Amino acid sequence: MSFNSFGHVFRFTTWGESHGPALGAVVDGCPPGLPLSEADIQPFLDARRPGTSRFTTQRQEPDQVKILSGVFEGQDGIQRTTGTPISLMIENVDQRSKDYGDVAKAYRPGHADYAYDAKYGFRDYRGGGRSSARETAARVAAGAVARLAIPEVSILAWVSAIGGDAIDPANFDAAEIGNNPFFCPDAKAAARWEELVDTARKAGSSLGAVVECIATGVPAGWGAPLYAKLDAELAHAMMGINAVKGVEIGDGFAAAANSGEGNADPMRPGNEGVPIFTANHAGGIAGGISTGQPVSVRVAFKPTSSILTPMPTITRDGEATDLFTKGRHDPCVGIRGVPVVEAMMALVLADQKLLHRAQTGR
Amino acid sequence: MSFNSFGHVFRFTTWGESHGPALGAVVDGCPPGLPLSEADIQPFLDARRPGTSRFTTQRQEPDQVKILSGVFEGQDGIQRTTGTPISLMIENVDQRSKDYGDVAKAYRPGHADYAYDAKYGFRDYRGGGRSSARETAARVAAGAVARLAIPEVSILAWVSAIGGDAIDPANFDAAEIGNNPFFCPDAKAAARWEELVDTARKAGSSLGAVVECIATGVPAGWGAPLYAKLDAELAHAMMGINAVKGVEIGDGFAAAANSGEGNADPMRPGNEGVPIFTANHAGGIAGGISTGQPVSVRVAFKPTSSILTPMPTITRDGEATDLFTKGRHDPCVGIRGVPVVEAMMALVLADQKLLHRAQTGR
Amino acid sequence: MSFNSFGHVFRFTTWGESHGPALGAVVDGCPPGLPLSEADIQPFLDARRPGTSRFTTQRQEPDQVKILSGVFEGQDGIQRTTGTPISLMIENVDQRSKDYGDVAKAYRPGHADYAYDAKYGFRDYRGGGRSSARETAARVAAGAVARLAIPEVSILAWVSAIGGDAIDPANFDAAEIGNNPFFCPDAKAAARWEELVDTARKAGSSLGAVVECIATGVPAGWGAPLYAKLDAELAHAMMGINAVKGVEIGDGFAAAANSGEGNADPMRPGNEGVPIFTANHAGGIAGGISTGQPVSVRVAFKPTSSILTPMPTITRDGEATDLFTKGRHDPCVGIRGVPVVEAMMALVLADQKLLHRAQTGR
Amino acid sequence: MSFNSFGHVFRFTTWGESHGPALGAVVDGCPPGLPLSEADIQPFLDARRPGTSRFTTQRQEPDQVKILSGVFEGQDGIQRTTGTPISLMIENVDQRSKDYGDVAKAYRPGHADYAYDAKYGFRDYRGGGRSSARETAARVAAGAVARLAIPEVSILAWVSAIGGDAIDPANFDAAEIGNNPFFCPDAKAAARWEELVDTARKAGSSLGAVVECIATGVPAGWGAPLYAKLDAELAHAMMGINAVKGVEIGDGFAAAANSGEGNADPMRPGNEGVPIFTANHAGGIAGGISTGQPVSVRVAFKPTSSILTPMPTITRDGEATDLFTKGRHDPCVGIRGVPVVEAMMALVLADQKLLHRAQTGR
Repeated sequence: MSFNSFGHVFRFTTWGESHGPALGAVVDGCPPGLPLSEADIQPFLDARRPGTSRFTTQRQEPDQVKILSGVFEGQDGIQRTTGTPISLMIENVDQRSKDYGDVAKAYRPGHADYAYDAKYGFRDYRGGGRSSARETAARVAAGAVARLAIPEVSILAWVSAIGGDAIDPANFDAAEIGNNPFFCPDAKAAARWEELVDTARKAGSSLGAVVECIATGVPAGWGAPLYAKLDAELAHAMMGINAVKGVEIGDGFAAAANSGEGNADPMRPGNEGVPIFTANHAGGIAGGISTGQPVSVRVAFKPTSSILTPMPTITRDGEATDLFTKGRHDPCVGIRGVPVVEAMMALVLADQKLLHRAQTGR
Repeated sequence: MSFNSFGHVFRFTTWGESHGPALGAVVDGCPPGLPLSEADIQPFLDARRPGTSRFTTQRQEPDQVKILSGVFEGQDGIQRTTGTPISLMIENVDQRSKDYGDVAKAYRPGHADYAYDAKYGFRDYRGGGRSSARETAARVAAGAVARLAIPEVSILAWVSAIGGDAIDPANFDAAEIGNNPFFCPDAKAAARWEELVDTARKAGSSLGAVVECIATGVPAGWGAPLYAKLDAELAHAMMGINAVKGVEIGDGFAAAANSGEGNADPMRPGNEGVPIFTANHAGGIAGGISTGQPVSVRVAFKPTSSILTPMPTITRDGEATDLFTKGRHDPCVGIRGVPVVEAMMALVLADQKLLHRAQTGR
Repeated sequence: MSFNSFGHVFRFTTWGESHGPALGAVVDGCPPGLPLSEADIQPFLDARRPGTSRFTTQRQEPDQVKILSGVFEGQDGIQRTTGTPISLMIENVDQRSKDYGDVAKAYRPGHADYAYDAKYGFRDYRGGGRSSARETAARVAAGAVARLAIPEVSILAWVSAIGGDAIDPANFDAAEIGNNPFFCPDAKAAARWEELVDTARKAGSSLGAVVECIATGVPAGWGAPLYAKLDAELAHAMMGINAVKGVEIGDGFAAAANSGEGNADPMRPGNEGVPIFTANHAGGIAGGISTGQPVSVRVAFKPTSSILTPMPTITRDGEATDLFTKGRHDPCVGIRGVPVVEAMMALVLADQKLLHRAQTGR
Repeated sequence: MSFNSFGHVFRFTTWGESHGPALGAVVDGCPPGLPLSEADIQPFLDARRPGTSRFTTQRQEPDQVKILSGVFEGQDGIQRTTGTPISLMIENVDQRSKDYGDVAKAYRPGHADYAYDAKYGFRDYRGGGRSSARETAARVAAGAVARLAIPEVSILAWVSAIGGDAIDPANFDAAEIGNNPFFCPDAKAAARWEELVDTARKAGSSLGAVVECIATGVPAGWGAPLYAKLDAELAHAMMGINAVKGVEIGDGFAAAANSGEGNADPMRPGNEGVPIFTANHAGGIAGGISTGQPVSVRVAFKPTSSILTPMPTITRDGEATDLFTKGRHDPCVGIRGVPVVEAMMALVLADQKLLHRAQTGR
C-alpha cells in the first residue's frame, strides 16, 4: 500500500537511487532466531552484480552488503535475527553522473524519464535515479533473508530465451546454469547467445529475455483465494521488477489456447497422504492456493531501453530532438533479472508462509 | 493485505459464496458527491450475467444489485456517494446444491477443491464456494462505482482469442463487440467461435480465452515506481481474477523477443505540451507510471476446469477415483471475463488516480 | 489503511448508516473451522441493544444478525467458519428520519455535522448517518466472531464512573455487572447512578462515563515493539469508538505522577516457568508486548452531544441560530459502550494472536 | 500493518537498536518538490538529543542525520524531495554495552526484557535494543520531513506536569518553553522541577510526566469517521511512543465527568465562512474529522523503568533475584518526549492531509 514496500507480514521496503550514496532495504516481520550474517546475503548479490562479464553493464560495483540492525549474537555465539527490522545497506561506489547531461534535458524513449517528470515535476536523472535496475540489488539482499525463513523451499531461476531465441527444453540441465554468463540451462543455447548478445552489444542495441523460475518444496495450502491469490502476489511481485512486461503462472497464455481436458492436472494417491499430480499445467497453484506441486512462473523482460541508436524524442521544453543513451548499460537486462526473480519468489513465499500460519496455525 | 480486499485508498472488499444467500462488495474511500444509483451499476452486471446465451452457464441469476449504504439524496434530489462505505449486495436465487454430492467427497482436477482442503481443513463445496466465478459479480459492481471516479477514462475490453483461435486485428471493430455473445470485435471470428464453443459445449469440454483491455484518457503521471508500478497493480488485479494464468502489459512477452530499437516508443512534440508517441509497445506505462498513451493489458483465462470427461483424481480419504463435473458451467469462462477485466481496470485506475493526487496534489 | 477497516490479518470492515436499510461488517482472515452461528453473536448484540431500559435511547431495534457468507456445515452437522469472509448484516427497522429536519440545515454543536460537511461537501444527516453510534452494532457482531478465535482469553468490561461519580473499587463485584442497566459492578454506585442518569435524562441533558476493560488469559508475547505496540493497537481501537476522547493502559495518567519505584511491577518465580508479578501498573503490557498479566484499559466517553438545551450554532449558510437535538438519544452513551469496548478488545487480541503466530510460529 | 511502519500514504519505517551501528527511518510517499536538506532535520534532533543537561541521560550522541536517498538538486540549485523514498540515517557513537551484563541474565522490572524473551525467544539486551528510547530519534527525523508537507500547520508541545507537579495554566508562556531544560512553559514550575528532578536523579529514581501538544492551522476536514478517526490515528501514534501509557484528545477524561451542556463547543458565524467556536472541549476533532480549531492532545509518560533501587525480579532461568539498572538513563523520559510527540503529530497530520486530498481532491 505504500509505494516502496512489498509484503504483508514478511515485508520489506527499499530505498536508494542509481547515483546516490547508497541503497538499501529494511526487512520487517522476519521470524526471530534465524542465523543471519552478511555471508548469507553476499553470494546472491554477487550473482546479480554488474561488471562480471562483457554481457552486463561495465559499471563496477562491489555490492558489499552491511547489516545495520535486527541481528544479535546469542549465547551460542551465532548471530541471529531478533524479529525486529533488519536494515541492509549497499554503498554505491562507481557513479559517473557526468554521462547524464543530455538526459537532464530530454526524454529517453522507452525510459521512465517523461513519466517521472509528468508525475513528480522533476526527477533525479543520474543513471535513471530510482527507476534504475540498481534498485534490484536491495531486493536481492532482502530475498536472501526471506530464503532463511523458508528452508523447506528450493528456488531456481534461469533465462529461457533471449531476443526470441529459446532454449530447447530437452537440453535443460540445471547444473549448466552457473557455467555461462547467461544463467542458461542449455549449453547449446548459451553458445548461440554469446554471439547474439555480442552482436547486439557491439551495435549498441539491446535484447529482451524470458526468465523462468521454479520453487519446489512449497507445501499445499499457501496462498489465499482471489485478491491474495498466490498467483496474484507473484504477478504483483514480478511485474514490479524493472523492465518486466509479462507474467505467466504455469502454462500461462498457452492455457488460454487449450481445452479443459488438455489443461487438467489429474491426481493419484501418493505416499503419506500427499497426492501425486500427473501434470502441472497450473504451475502449482489452484484457486490461488499452492497444491504441493512446484510453483512455476515465467517473466518477460523487455530489451533495455538504453541504446546507442538515436531515437526521435522531445526535450523537457517540448522541442523535437534525437537522443541516444550514453553511459554503461546491460545489453540484455533480463540476464541479471535471474537473481532478482528468485529473490521476489522467496519474498512472496516467505510472506505467504507466515500469512498461512497466521490464519490456520499450521 | 487482508485476503479479500483490493486497493489502497479506493478500496473494496468482497464476500459471498456461489451457493450462499448472497454476495457483495463494500467499496471504501470513494470520493463524495458522485451521483450513484443502482441504475449506474446494473448494466455492467447485466453484461456479465450468466444464462444469457447458450455459450455461458445456464444458471439463471438476475444479479440485481442493492445499495445498502454510502449514498444519500442531496438537496438537488440526486442520490450521491457520501464518502462513507458503499455496501453492494446481490442475492443468489438459482442455487442447486444437490449437484455437488460427488464434489464433497472427491477433488475435481484443476479446481481449487484439494488446495482449499489443504489450507482450511474443509470447504464449502457447493458450486465451488468462494472459488466460484460468481464472486466476480461483486467486482463488477464495485467496478461500476470506480468508473464514476474516473470520468476522464474510457475502458474497453474484448475477447481476442478462444481456444487458440485469434481475431484478425485488421477486422477489429469496437462496435461489433456488443453484437455477439463473445464480446468479439471481429465478426468473422465471432462466427467461427460460435461453432468452436458449441462443439466444446456439446462435448462437455471447455476452452481457454484471451481478453484484452484498453483504457484511454489516463493522463500521464498515474502509478508509481517499482512495488506500486501501475503495471504491477494491474498484474495483481488481473491475476486475482478466477481462472487467470497470465498477464501482459503492452507488448508483453513479444517485447522479450524484440530489440531496443524495435521496442522503442519515439516521442514527438504535440499540442498543449502533451507529447505524441509514434508507437505504444509499452502499453501506456513507463517506469511504472502512465505516459498518457492508452493503457493496454492482455489476460489469459484457462479453460473452465469443470468438464464432463471423467478425469483421474482422489477422494478426500486419498483413494483413487475418476470424477467429472455435474452442474451448470461456462464452456469458456473467459467470455464472461470481459466485464470483470474492465471492472478491475477501473478499480485499479480509480485507486491510482487518488494515490497520485494524495502525493502530488494534482 | 482504508477508512472503515480495522486489523491486520484478522480484519473487519463495517458499513451502514443510522437510518439506512441495514448495517454490517465483513470479517476477513478468521481462522477456519470455528463453530459459528447467529446464536454465538446475538447475545452480544442484545447486551448493546437500544431500548432495553429508560437509560438508553428509546429507539426499538431488534438488532437481529444474519450471517451471509463464510460459514458452512461440515460433516459433523456443525456450522463452522470456512476461512473466507464472513458477512454479517443487521437490518434497521425503527428509523424516524423526520426528526432530523432541523439538522439538515444547521450544525449540532459537539456533533460531527460541521466536520462532515467540511470534509465531504454534504452529509447524510438522518440520525447522524455514519457517525451514529448505531455503527457500533457492527463492531459488536464482529467482536463476537473474534472471541471464538481467542478461547484462551476472557474479557470483562464495566462502567466505572458516570458524570464524575465513580465506583468504589472496594465494592467491585463482577457478578453485579449484569444486575443493573449500567453495567456497574458496584451495587451502591448503580443505585446512585439511577437517580443521576434519570435527572439528566429528564432535563434533556447527558453525561460522560468511564468504561474499563480487562482481558485475562492473554499469554506473554502478543503485540510488537513500537508502531504495532499492543497498547498502540488498543488505543487505536478504543479511540476509534464514537464519543471516546481518552484511553489509558494500566495506570495510564496516574503513572505520569508516579516514581520509577512506585510504578515498578516486580517479578517472582511462578509455576511452570510462568513468572508471578506482584503488581500490574503496566496493565499487562511492557515494551508493547503482553507480559501474561491481565491486559487492562480505561476509556473515556464524552457526554452525548444530543441534548434538549438549545445551543448557539450556525446554519449551513453560515447564519447564527440556536439548535437543540430532537430525536431519541442515549442520556449516557458510555453505558452502551461496554459491549463495544469488549468487542474492540477481542478484535485487537484476535488480530495480535494471529500476527504473533505468523512471525514466530507459536 | 507491518510492525515498524506508520502511516497510510505518507508513511515511514524505522529501524535500529540502541547499541547497533546506526538507526534510521525510510520516509515513503512524501510529496515531491519540497526543499529538504539535513539542516531542515537537525534542529529537531538537537532538541531531542541526549546529554544536553543533567536532567537527561549522559550518553553523548551527536545525532547527526544523513539523507541517503530521495532528494535531488533541481535546476535552481535547491535540493528537493523527488517523491521517492527518503532514507535517513543516524549513526550511534556512544554505546557502552558492557553496562548490560546483568540485564542479559535477568529481567528488569517494568522493562520490555521479559516480554521480548517471551515473544522472540531471545533479545538484544544492550541498552534495551529495539525498545530503547533511542528509536525515537528516527521518528523525530521523519517528523521533520513531515512538517515540510504541512506548512499550513504549526505544532507546539511542552511538558505540563512532572511527577504529579503540574504547571499553572495561568502562567503559560510559549516563549518560556525553550528557556529551561524541561520544555516547561511555566517559569515557576520549571524552577520547582529543577529541584524535583534533581532529587530523583540523585536518588537513582525516576519520574513520570505529561506532555501536551497543540497543532494550529489544521483546516476543517482532515481525518475520517471511525477506524481512521483523526483522534484514533493520534492515539495510535502517541501510544506507540516508548513509555506512553495514556492519551487524551481535547478534554479527554475530564469530558467523561462532564454534561452535554458543559462539553458543548458552540459555534458562531466567522469571517470568510469559517465558523468561530466559543469553546474547544473536543480538541479540534468531531466525529473523527478536524473542525478547524486547534488539535490538542495530552500524553502520559510513565517514569523511566531504569532505577538504581534493586527490585525483585527473576533470571532468564526463572530464579529469584534483585536487580537494579546500571547504565545512563533519563531521570524523566517524558522530557525528551516533547520533540517526539511533536514529530508524531506532524507525521499523522501529513498523512491525513494527503488522505483527505486523495478522497476529495481538496
